[in-house]
Parts: sequence; structure tokens; C-alpha cells
Amino acid sequence: MPIRIWVPNQSDASETRVSLVPAVAKKLIALGSQVTIESGVGLRAHHPDSAYVEAGASIATNGDAWSNADLVTTVGPPRLEQIGGMADGSILIGLLAPFENLRLFAALAEKGVTAFSMEFIPRISRAQTMDVLSSQASLGGYMAAVIGARACPKMFPMMMTAAGTIAPARVFIIGAGVAGLQAIATAKRLGAVVEAYDVRPVVKEQVLSLGARFVELPMTTQEVQTSGGYARELTDAERAEQQALMTKHIVGADVVITTAAVFGKAPPMLIPESVVGQMRPGSVIVDLAADVDAGRGNCELTQPDQQVTSASGVLIDGTTNLSALVPVHASQAYANNMLAFVKELVIDKQIQLNLQDEIQNGAAITHDGKIVNERIAKAVQTA
Amino acid sequence: MPIRIWVPNQSDASETRVSLVPAVAKKLIALGSQVTIESGVGLRAHHPDSAYVEAGASIATNGDAWSNADLVTTVGPPRLEQIGGMADGSILIGLLAPFENLRLFAALAEKGVTAFSMEFIPRISRAQTMDVLSSQASLGGYMAAVIGARACPKMFPMMMTAAGTIAPARVFIIGAGVAGLQAIATAKRLGAVVEAYDVRPVVKEQVLSLGARFVELPMTTQEVQTSGGYARELTDAERAEQQALMTKHIVGADVVITTAAVFGKAPPMLIPESVVGQMRPGSVIVDLAADVDAGRGNCELTQPDQQVTSASGVLIDGTTNLSALVPVHASQAYANNMLAFVKELVIDKQIQLNLQDEIQNGAAITHDGKIVNERIAKAVQTA
Repeated sequence: MPIRIWVPNQSDASETRVSLVPAVAKKLIALGSQVTIESGVGLRAHHPDSAYVEAGASIATNGDAWSNADLVTTVGPPRLEQIGGMADGSILIGLLAPFENLRLFAALAEKGVTAFSMEFIPRISRAQTMDVLSSQASLGGYMAAVIGARACPKMFPMMMTAAGTIAPARVFIIGAGVAGLQAIATAKRLGAVVEAYDVRPVVKEQVLSLGARFVELPMTTQEVQTSGGYARELTDAERAEQQALMTKHIVGADVVITTAAVFGKAPPMLIPESVVGQMRPGSVIVDLAADVDAGRGNCELTQPDQQVTSASGVLIDGTTNLSALVPVHASQAYANNMLAFVKELVIDKQIQLNLQDEIQNGAAITHDGKIVNERIAKAVQTA
Repeated sequence: MPIRIWVPNQSDASETRVSLVPAVAKKLIALGSQVTIESGVGLRAHHPDSAYVEAGASIATNGDAWSNADLVTTVGPPRLEQIGGMADGSILIGLLAPFENLRLFAALAEKGVTAFSMEFIPRISRAQTMDVLSSQASLGGYMAAVIGARACPKMFPMMMTAAGTIAPARVFIIGAGVAGLQAIATAKRLGAVVEAYDVRPVVKEQVLSLGARFVELPMTTQEVQTSGGYARELTDAERAEQQALMTKHIVGADVVITTAAVFGKAPPMLIPESVVGQMRPGSVIVDLAADVDAGRGNCELTQPDQQVTSASGVLIDGTTNLSALVPVHASQAYANNMLAFVKELVIDKQIQLNLQDEIQNGAAITHDGKIVNERIAKAVQTA
């Protein structure tokens, strides 16, 4: 029996990405799977149904697709009523945002579904090809710089004209993870003068190699990088010290891009309203850490998914899910990550799970009727 | 008596630029002028009243500013009722768009005002510092590329990732004048693959020097550049030939930026709806030639000042006045152009007009009770 893969429409109407693009569907079919899509699944990523059909996929004609599937791929979490029809022993793979969807996992466990959440794939070198957080953050960082350029009342590059010189814009990027580095690279490409700061001194070299200045804050703190390569959450005292030291750089910038998200927690507040008030009118903050579930971002004035202007005339852009603004490439990268992960589950054209494997074990949230991820299990108990 | 300069608010509420920035006001005051601003004149370009006061300017306190002025600087044309109070022999300088405001010039002549329209300043090397069309077009070209990047569902640069390569976006720029060249430079900076076309083969070298590919269309036409360096209007037959040859390049692009404006005429239609229909869904057209007065642009589907999506899923951005989206730099450049022109009119700290001078003669629309520009005089007669 070929593996039956089902690609339903996104449950979140604002989601533009698709979990499988036609080129990846074709590869899975070549590997012996059957792929069925819901009509229109790729439309917002500019892949019409016809492209899937050309790739060898089918379009679902009735409501049985969920129950007939061995494996379901999504971008975000499905709705509770959708998983009601899932077969015992079937598999769900997506960015399932488990901390924000605890009820979903109790139901998935009850249905006997093995749910893999892609953001839980361990950051080991063997899993780089499945690193959805990185691939999407990179696109998000690019788009943050473009949004900053669009909103900034100055042009980014220097320009020498017959009527005098236009000075380049100043961009300050807080957090030099994957998103921050791509934002730095993009702002530099556009000709801005770029400064960047990260609590982890280890990224200094990468920042410099992109042509940006690395802001050194003489903080008393040490050991802020986790084994996964992310920054750990700072204490309140550390945060206050960091804020005070950063103010000068924020106030001097035309565009500030903040990227400090802490996985599974609300984003830390790095730019209080009082600092926004010291910025020049017309300055822009692009808050890449804006989070709908947390209802906040790195700036005190951030409203997730809105552009707001402070009393002093500073624009704060709280667009979330920035990679969804480049859905063609975001879906391509996502689907490639998905393909790499699915290949981990398949031996001899059949699904053969091995939850002892580091990658599968890290990503699994439910399996065999239970919530197998300890943090999620604990969160469900205390919820 | 010092020259009394009056800087009123823009009559067009959507205009963000200001005709004099504080730094230029300061220079004019140092040259012996008095500068009075209307409260709030620089706000949308992020110059508060206080910055003008620091530069030595005054803020108007009553309604006499128009009648007390020797010289009025604006960005766009003033309203008819505003010029009612202007003094006989006073001077108005701005981008007065005379072809679209014929009634205004009959009134200005009647009031005895000398009106200089900056877009009529001749394109001679001595007047380069006053070339408002170039300075604003350059900023507009930059912004067109940024708008294209923001709207495009692909990222512009190539990206190599663990999960595969993302191909760069393809940008096709039609018209390699000042705006087109800056759009080319910006799209290249962002990492796109850029092609450009211009009916004037003479610009090929400039296009190549920016790293773009120059599209050669084997047209039968010759001599399309005017003495002013712009492209002349093509005949219908020439246009049809051009369109047919361009289709392949338009259809292959992710973003098309059109910049073909013909001074004083409605923009030529370069991209018919049928060609839009052949483009990939998700493609973007940024129509820099979109013109509110003409109600059209270079693409048949363009709606000036709107974003529309074709039935086939192509986005057409008709934003006009693109330099106003970077009002800080656009105002700086505009004010520097204005300063250079005002200096032409001043000898020994007094205004001493000389309409025999090539620059003043070119820019003057009304003087000494008459409409002195022949084309405008003719247009007024036939209106």
C-alpha cells in the first residue's frame, strides 16, 4: 500500500503558506506515496490545483480525506473538529504551536495520532535540512528589513547628487539569530549603516562579516547561550541593565528591528514606551517578536498584527508571521523541510516510526495514545 | 529690506514633503532673507516648528503671510483662493504642474505674480543643482523597487540553505531614465536578477554598469531621444512593435517596474490587459508612471493611487508621487534644488529677476501680468 498523504487547507485563513508545494509532492509520489490535496490549498502561495495534478497528486472529492490519510501535512495547527476524523495510528506533521494549543494534543492523543511538531525538531546537524524555524526566520528577517525600508521616511542608501549628499539611514538590529542576521544582510544590501546587538558575544564575528557594526554592551552577565544555540531568558536585573545600555543605540536609529523571541515564552520587553518617546519622529520599529498569543512583542507599544504610531510619531510595525509575506519561497523552504522529515519516517516505502531516534523523539508530541513530550504533558496537567 | 520668504502648508493634504527644510531656511536667512513658515509645514517630513525657529525662521501668526511675502515656496501648486492675497510683483516657486492647473496661471498673471515652475527648469549642466525632476525621480525609483520587494511573494536575493536553494526573483524595469536607473540599482542591491529596457540605446552602458542585463528589442525605430535627454513619444505603430517585443520579458518577470512618463502628456500604455493575463499569478507591476490627472499609467489595469489585483492574480501598484514616501530625503533634495534656484534670482541680497537668463526664462510661466511660457499660453487659449 502506498503511503496516503493528505494536504488540507490551512485552518487559519490568514495563512498564505502551503505545507507541500507541487515540486515536493512530485518527489513524494516518486518515492511511492499518494498525495491528495484540498482544492485551493496552494492558491495563496501561487500554486494552482492544476500544478498539483501535473505533479501527480489528486484533489479530494469528498469528506473522507482526513480519515483515509496515513500522514497529514499542515503549516499551522488544524482545528479540533478536523482531527476528529483522523485514523488511529495516523501521523500529523506541522508547526503545531503546542504551547498555544494544549487542548488539541489531548484530543490527538485520544485519537491515537502521532503528532510531530516541526518546531520541536532538535537543532542537531543531522536535522538541519528539517529546520523550519531557521528557514522561516531567515525569510522573516529579510522581510523585516524590507518593511523597515518601506516605512522609513528616509531612503536607506547614501546618494550623491548635484544638489548635495543624502546620508544613509541608520538601522539597529537587536538579536543576531537567524532572523536578525538576514535582516542585517538585507539592510546592508540596501545601503543602510547597520548596527547590531546580541546578548551572545559569540555572534559578533558573524555580524562583522556582514559589514555591520557589533554593539558591545558592557554587561555583567555571562553564559546566555543555550545548548540549542538560542539565547536564554534574562533575569529582570539583567534585562534592566541591557535596556539602559541599549537606549543610546535605539534613539540614534532610523529603523530598529527587534528579533528577541524566547521559545515557548512571551517575548521579553526590550523597548519601553519611555525610550520610544526619545526616538526621532518618523523613526520605525519593526517588531519581529510580535506574538498574537502573548499579545505583545519586544516593544511596549507593539500591537501584534498592527501598525501603530506613538504619540511622538514613531511607527511600530507588529506584523507577525513575516515569512508568510513571501509565501512562494516560504512554502518552498517549508515543504523541503517537510520532505526531509518525512523521509526520516519512511523505510522501504512504508512508514516505520522509531521514537527512540533523536529527531523523531524530539518532535513527537503525541504517540500511542499519550502525550509523549514532557513539557507539553506538564503544561496540559497544570492548564 | 530683507527678502521675505513665505513657506505655506501644502494645499494637497496627501503631500508629505516640504519646500524648505530647516537647514535650507537657515542658509537663506544667513544670506539675508527672512523666512516665515505656516505652523506644521514640515511635520509630515518630520521637521517640527521648533526646528524652523531654531534655524531662525518665524511662524506666521495671522493671515497676512501671503500678502507680505516677496517670495513663496511650495511643493505643489497652491489653491486659487490662496494666491488671491499675493502681492503684485511677488514670486511663486514650486512644482506647479501648469498643464493640469491652467486656470491658476491666468489668475497668477492677473495678480502680477512671477510664477516659476521647477519642472520647466531647462536640463542644462548649469541647472543640475536645481533639477527637481531628477532628484525626486531618483527617490521614486528607489521606492518603486522597495514596493516591489514588499509586494512580491518571493524574496529578491538568492539564498542557499540546508534545505535547498532559493532562486532570486526576476525584476524587469521598463525605462532607464533617472527613476528607472535607481530602481535597477535598488533591485540589484537586493539581489534580484534585473533586466532593463529603454527605447534609447544610449542608456545601455549605464544599465550594464549597474549589473543589469539590457534587453535589446530589434525595433525599426530611430532617434527617440529629445535634446533634453528624455525619450520622445512613440507613434502608434512603434508602440505596437515595442509591446510585442517586450511581452516575453514582462511575462518572465516576478516584478515589472514601468517608468515611461512623457512630460506634459498622458503616460503611454505599455502593458495591455492581455499581457497581464499571461503573467504568473502573484507577479507584481509597480507603475511609476501612474498619473492621477491622466487617470492611467503604463499598464492598462493601473488605477492611480491604488493597488489592484487582476483576475489572474497579478498585483498592480499605482502609487503616485513615490518620493513623498521618503519625505525626509525628498524634502532635503527638493529644498536644496529650491535654494540653488533662489540664489539665481538674488544679487546683493535683493531679488533681481532676469528673464533673458536661460534658466529663469525656461522656468517662468507668468511674469509682468502675462503668461510668458508659450506652451502654457497656447494651452490656456485652447482650453
